[in-house]
Amino acid sequence: MVGVPTFATPPGFLGLPFTTTPAALSVAGIPLDIGTTNRAGTRAGPQAIRAASRMLVDGAHPVSGVDPATLSLADLGEFAIALGDIQASLALIEQQAALIPHLLALGGEHGVTLPLLRALARRVGQSLALLHVDAHCDTWSESFGQEYGHGSVFFHAINEGLIDPHRTIQIGIRATVQTEVAAWAPARGVTVLSAQDVHAEGIAATIARARAVLGTGPAYLSFDIDALDPAFAPGTGTPEIGGLASWQAQALIRGMAGLDWRGMDLVEVAPAYDVSEITALAGATLAWEYICMVGKDWGK
Amino acid sequence: MVGVPTFATPPGFLGLPFTTTPAALSVAGIPLDIGTTNRAGTRAGPQAIRAASRMLVDGAHPVSGVDPATLSLADLGEFAIALGDIQASLALIEQQAALIPHLLALGGEHGVTLPLLRALARRVGQSLALLHVDAHCDTWSESFGQEYGHGSVFFHAINEGLIDPHRTIQIGIRATVQTEVAAWAPARGVTVLSAQDVHAEGIAATIARARAVLGTGPAYLSFDIDALDPAFAPGTGTPEIGGLASWQAQALIRGMAGLDWRGMDLVEVAPAYDVSEITALAGATLAWEYICMVGKDWGK
Amino acid sequence: MVGVPTFATPPGFLGLPFTTTPAALSVAGIPLDIGTTNRAGTRAGPQAIRAASRMLVDGAHPVSGVDPATLSLADLGEFAIALGDIQASLALIEQQAALIPHLLALGGEHGVTLPLLRALARRVGQSLALLHVDAHCDTWSESFGQEYGHGSVFFHAINEGLIDPHRTIQIGIRATVQTEVAAWAPARGVTVLSAQDVHAEGIAATIARARAVLGTGPAYLSFDIDALDPAFAPGTGTPEIGGLASWQAQALIRGMAGLDWRGMDLVEVAPAYDVSEITALAGATLAWEYICMVGKDWGK
Amino acid sequence: MVGVPTFATPPGFLGLPFTTTPAALSVAGIPLDIGTTNRAGTRAGPQAIRAASRMLVDGAHPVSGVDPATLSLADLGEFAIALGDIQASLALIEQQAALIPHLLALGGEHGVTLPLLRALARRVGQSLALLHVDAHCDTWSESFGQEYGHGSVFFHAINEGLIDPHRTIQIGIRATVQTEVAAWAPARGVTVLSAQDVHAEGIAATIARARAVLGTGPAYLSFDIDALDPAFAPGTGTPEIGGLASWQAQALIRGMAGLDWRGMDLVEVAPAYDVSEITALAGATLAWEYICMVGKDWGK
Amino acid sequence: MVGVPTFATPPGFLGLPFTTTPAALSVAGIPLDIGTTNRAGTRAGPQAIRAASRMLVDGAHPVSGVDPATLSLADLGEFAIALGDIQASLALIEQQAALIPHLLALGGEHGVTLPLLRALARRVGQSLALLHVDAHCDTWSESFGQEYGHGSVFFHAINEGLIDPHRTIQIGIRATVQTEVAAWAPARGVTVLSAQDVHAEGIAATIARARAVLGTGPAYLSFDIDALDPAFAPGTGTPEIGGLASWQAQALIRGMAGLDWRGMDLVEVAPAYDVSEITALAGATLAWEYICMVGKDWGK
Amino acid sequence: MVGVPTFATPPGFLGLPFTTTPAALSVAGIPLDIGTTNRAGTRAGPQAIRAASRMLVDGAHPVSGVDPATLSLADLGEFAIALGDIQASLALIEQQAALIPHLLALGGEHGVTLPLLRALARRVGQSLALLHVDAHCDTWSESFGQEYGHGSVFFHAINEGLIDPHRTIQIGIRATVQTEVAAWAPARGVTVLSAQDVHAEGIAATIARARAVLGTGPAYLSFDIDALDPAFAPGTGTPEIGGLASWQAQALIRGMAGLDWRGMDLVEVAPAYDVSEITALAGATLAWEYICMVGKDWGK
Repeated sequence: MVGVPTFATPPGFLGLPFTTTPAALSVAGIPLDIGTTNRAGTRAGPQAIRAASRMLVDGAHPVSGVDPATLSLADLGEFAIALGDIQASLALIEQQAALIPHLLALGGEHGVTLPLLRALARRVGQSLALLHVDAHCDTWSESFGQEYGHGSVFFHAINEGLIDPHRTIQIGIRATVQTEVAAWAPARGVTVLSAQDVHAEGIAATIARARAVLGTGPAYLSFDIDALDPAFAPGTGTPEIGGLASWQAQALIRGMAGLDWRGMDLVEVAPAYDVSEITALAGATLAWEYICMVGKDWGK
Repeated sequence: MVGVPTFATPPGFLGLPFTTTPAALSVAGIPLDIGTTNRAGTRAGPQAIRAASRMLVDGAHPVSGVDPATLSLADLGEFAIALGDIQASLALIEQQAALIPHLLALGGEHGVTLPLLRALARRVGQSLALLHVDAHCDTWSESFGQEYGHGSVFFHAINEGLIDPHRTIQIGIRATVQTEVAAWAPARGVTVLSAQDVHAEGIAATIARARAVLGTGPAYLSFDIDALDPAFAPGTGTPEIGGLASWQAQALIRGMAGLDWRGMDLVEVAPAYDVSEITALAGATLAWEYICMVGKDWGK
Repeated sequence: MVGVPTFATPPGFLGLPFTTTPAALSVAGIPLDIGTTNRAGTRAGPQAIRAASRMLVDGAHPVSGVDPATLSLADLGEFAIALGDIQASLALIEQQAALIPHLLALGGEHGVTLPLLRALARRVGQSLALLHVDAHCDTWSESFGQEYGHGSVFFHAINEGLIDPHRTIQIGIRATVQTEVAAWAPARGVTVLSAQDVHAEGIAATIARARAVLGTGPAYLSFDIDALDPAFAPGTGTPEIGGLASWQAQALIRGMAGLDWRGMDLVEVAPAYDVSEITALAGATLAWEYICMVGKDWGK
Repeated sequence: MVGVPTFATPPGFLGLPFTTTPAALSVAGIPLDIGTTNRAGTRAGPQAIRAASRMLVDGAHPVSGVDPATLSLADLGEFAIALGDIQASLALIEQQAALIPHLLALGGEHGVTLPLLRALARRVGQSLALLHVDAHCDTWSESFGQEYGHGSVFFHAINEGLIDPHRTIQIGIRATVQTEVAAWAPARGVTVLSAQDVHAEGIAATIARARAVLGTGPAYLSFDIDALDPAFAPGTGTPEIGGLASWQAQALIRGMAGLDWRGMDLVEVAPAYDVSEITALAGATLAWEYICMVGKDWGK
Repeated sequence: MVGVPTFATPPGFLGLPFTTTPAALSVAGIPLDIGTTNRAGTRAGPQAIRAASRMLVDGAHPVSGVDPATLSLADLGEFAIALGDIQASLALIEQQAALIPHLLALGGEHGVTLPLLRALARRVGQSLALLHVDAHCDTWSESFGQEYGHGSVFFHAINEGLIDPHRTIQIGIRATVQTEVAAWAPARGVTVLSAQDVHAEGIAATIARARAVLGTGPAYLSFDIDALDPAFAPGTGTPEIGGLASWQAQALIRGMAGLDWRGMDLVEVAPAYDVSEITALAGATLAWEYICMVGKDWGK
Repeated sequence: MVGVPTFATPPGFLGLPFTTTPAALSVAGIPLDIGTTNRAGTRAGPQAIRAASRMLVDGAHPVSGVDPATLSLADLGEFAIALGDIQASLALIEQQAALIPHLLALGGEHGVTLPLLRALARRVGQSLALLHVDAHCDTWSESFGQEYGHGSVFFHAINEGLIDPHRTIQIGIRATVQTEVAAWAPARGVTVLSAQDVHAEGIAATIARARAVLGTGPAYLSFDIDALDPAFAPGTGTPEIGGLASWQAQALIRGMAGLDWRGMDLVEVAPAYDVSEITALAGATLAWEYICMVGKDWGK
């Protein structure tokens, strides 16, 4: 181990200094949380995830051997948002995301994904393939009267043509849901694997299924930390028992190597409900898995 | 999602109003906890479980499609108990339980199960089949000199003929135990599956085994939250490592559909030791799994 | 002690059943929290305060002898709000408040006070005297670009003529503040006592000062729990050290008897940051002090 | 500093070894908690207080110069109790206490004080003077139907002639109370000082008042940790805001030197609700203050 | 259940009295923690593990039937260390360990293993087989400039010939690591199984692999609690997600019966980061599994 | 309020960027904690204090009107230390401190003060006046065999002539202490005020006393957060009840204006024992009080 002990690591993601200049892959925090419907506080997620990432600074990924220190990475700090105004915040997020070639966004609530997809779909000029890992389908047409909150992200993303439902897979889904809402996305071609499906079939089969659905075009990964079981990720707003173990989530991301990844978000870490930083560490580690997974292909 | 956000949900189980009139299936809290032998505080379990159940109010079960809102349910509030007096409390519990056709009791300590079984066995007029999910066998003849505490429930239930040992299965058992106590129930015909057995054989085999033991007669489910591993349910009085994952417990209950269920208790949630409400949520969700499982058959 | 043990108390404020019919004094929760600027989560405040109030159900106030059980009280449950939309939420709150003769509102963030004052000032037909207990002056013209958040409540209330600055006193103020903001309210006639002033001069002098400022007309009490020191109220979003002790706050409210009180709010309890329920208990107790204080005069 | 670092201190009170032989002053734990009426868990109090006392092992009292290491002290471990049976437990406690010349009991709930007073009054052959520091008067005739719980200790102690009401003073009282209960003890000659009285009059006046009431005969100190404000002692079952600061409690005990002290209990520490061990440390320190206070006179 | 309730159990490991005389197998705490590189506080580990072991006092192991009460066990209390001086502490630890025939050491940090191995290798007169369960390989040549910290234990142990790399297996490894460090131990013959390997291949295969590597000579078990996933063991200094479940760790130790075990350490429990004592309980239970596993062979 | 919401504030102290260039007053963290004798973890103090300081970024001091944004301030990040080696760490700290004109050091343990005083006394060329606010006198000649730990700082500082005992005042002292240790510093001219003295005499008298002792020469402020009562600062390693309230500490620092301040340290914040960030906030606020206090004189 070289450098400084973890407890003295600078607070950017993986110890990166803050900058305003994007790199090949850029991390940014989006502290929006006003569209959440149960427990609050994902605004503090980005800084908690960054702090937890100090554990991952030194050395390479133990399986792929990719060392993030050798990659072109930047931490752009926090996106500006409009306090108390979701619509204005979504517009601001889209504007800022549009300027970043490859963004790894740290939430914040899941509502941030919609403007990220808007910006990215416009950039790539086509619908994206989507790997959506979550306890909730997030395809409600609205949430308690709120059109653009964290429960309707993919309803809008599909309706707006930002993602291609036939190349979209949702993994970990297990929450209560109205029957018609549950049927909506599959009726449009979306593949849904529940957490019980993953437990029953195993992670290797899950990976194979996901790769088959995602295909070879530009793809996006949206990871809601509540996909993990509350035992592994208590620090989130709408926990659901029966979820994924952290090792399954890591294996899943490792299994995504070689696809055409264009961006990721890691959302819904709510530090006030975390214990001993384990949820923030899970978020940081899954973001780092993504970086090492896509970074593996950069050298090719 | 319709109705109110979860954070404004009324505090009855699944947002039900409190009532004194039983429904087809009635929920009640039993805040007895004076017979516990390690950590205290299950008296606060019922209210914590109810609060956590707000997450489950809206929508149907994601697999069975059963929507509790369509079932005849009631929350009867808290049972009266006799403070500081176990025997008097057990008598009170039995009296109150006798008036309720189908009771889902929220503990409170496991000691409450004995009077519930007494009331139910009398109602059905025969010994019950029992699915007992727990880290502890609870067949001690006494606990530290106390005849009727949370460790001797099934010793008495078998001796009193309330349950049929040949149609009784205990799942998740793993605590230290005197050799003669461990041998007592199996000698009477009880089937015992340790948590390691479940991990080794898989949940499908466990379900098959349980169904074979339980048979087709009137059955009762007693679920001690410490059957779950402390990672999934830290908020309990006598945790034991090596336990079940919450997804296994959910799968187990789902696998019990079609049997002749007459009642359930979910006991030993001790909120003072919970973190971020995950144990209470596990308790609430397992109770809701039971409701959806038995409710599925009501329409037939 | 009669009735049920506190751990089995129904969950309305002081164990009241929920109702839709106002009483002489009505309690309601307002789970709005999207205008907060530091730590999140006051949406969960009302239910936490209600749960903590179980400690106060049985018996009379130890000094005044007023027993809330003898008063005309109601718990109206939670106000409807518009998720993710402050302006629409403020309008909804004002509409609901307009229907309630004497409201004790449980926050939620401080932003809820503005519509409460709008409704009340219209009802009484004149500007109100205001006792504002808080760590922050809340007279910013905006907060980080947000016009109507928890930091600008009294800027608007004064500008809209809802409160009379000459009959307004702020107690406990101690946060960092721009010099011009600090000068704004005093320039309009508002009296400001810092927490250090209270510590130095004593609570009796503080009470005398407050009574002199408030005068005899219709008065309103807005109590931000962060007026208390974080030692006494850690569960809040924008804590500031050096605050009031809870006994000082109790003495202050007791000292307000005999004035023409028309309403109160107790805001900014953020349960995710609370420890062992002490902040929620402080909130519940201060609300109960208000009830007993105004209730003392009802019998006259 | 000599000896071992605090984190390696043996776990008896002040690092004492456990023994069965009483010393001039003996410490014992009484893990009874089944008579409590709100939050549970004082059974774990004695061990938490002992662990926290490691901070006090090395050196003398900073004011009196008394070094407990020079006194005849013993830690007798935990009293036996009858699980789930208050009456039988009280009898057991009385039997065990009867064998100990000068007992400092660590609770456990306040219900343990009654048998301690029974044993002590018999030993000294007369009614005792009582210094009772508490948020609650504990003179209810019963608690929720329970005759001998933590709320009726001094009702019975006065009725049984164990304490002399004219030489009894209650300090810190502030909870809700039925008017007739509040009047009962004063009508028998008991002096009551509320926490607000202490805050208003100062601790020196409080000490003078207490000494005047207690007089020169055999005296007993019963200290309920909830006399302290929840900010200083969150780890207790029935917290009430507005309480004493820990420095006031220390000053009070220091001010009791020279009286004829025969025993003390420190009760109602509930570790599950403690934070960072501060309540247990307060309990340990107040017990140590008593030891140093009475030990000061031993050498004379 | 006989004896005393768990909440009154004496504080030695498994309720043993402290002694200075070793038994056939002796437990001792080693509160060294100054060589840690991320979160602090393993000095408090031994006492927390002992306290948690109260759950295991009564009765036999549920599978092997071994009852620790029938074995020759002792708790020797805490080892002396040199505050603030790692090298002097390591020397002290080695001296103390040299006097104990079969030691089960409770950490403290992993740095304590080196002097334990030094003492043990000298005692047995040969290199030891090693089962090392951990998230980290701990074969760095130094940690942030520190030669003898918790990250370089096995680098030194191999270089000093204390362990035989060909009979050494590391299980659970998953942290970031420099490529050359990751290659160092395997190049010397060490077998490394990642946590993902265990999850993928199953615990039975893992056990078989370990037994094959360890062989029949004198063997040592070093268990770093961070081998477990943070969900199961949050209370540690350098958590890494994706770890073992507690049931896997238990199965692993049970699978080691019959080998020539000479000692164990259970290190890196950091109670300040624990929740509801689950990490301490995991540590205590794994130590108890070792005792029952080796004790099983004693009677042969 | 301008700028960004507090939850998006950059992580330097008061939102400052990290730099390597000192300003008129520079903040630096010193994450040394291996010399502590009770609870561990002050290594994480600097980053926690910085994070908590976000509350203080916007606006001026409410009493003095000093706005830190107008001062020449820098955050130099963390000092390098030698892991596991106190003596080497002290040497490193002294070297780094020697390069900084006016340092506000954020601990870390109190042991860091000795090298800071060594560097500063050499810089100013004379003994310093010292205001030492603490629960412990820290004048032991050693701590459990350790010559340079957090308990012997001022023993060495006096012996080395770094501070002038006649211009040294210790405030808040209240821990157990050997009689000869308690007598040592006063015998050399040091003034000692216990926490009880402060409570009894009032903070104005305390300020006057301190100013009289400190005189007009170069002065240093060493503030151990455990001077505060554990209610106000639970997050520390060696808490002692009966301490100062945070408002008293603020008043004390404000009362020190106009003296010749040359440096400050704020030590012993141990975040693992903190609750809801209140200790870190207290530390941050007291450091900010110092900045505003000394900054007030800069413009003169």
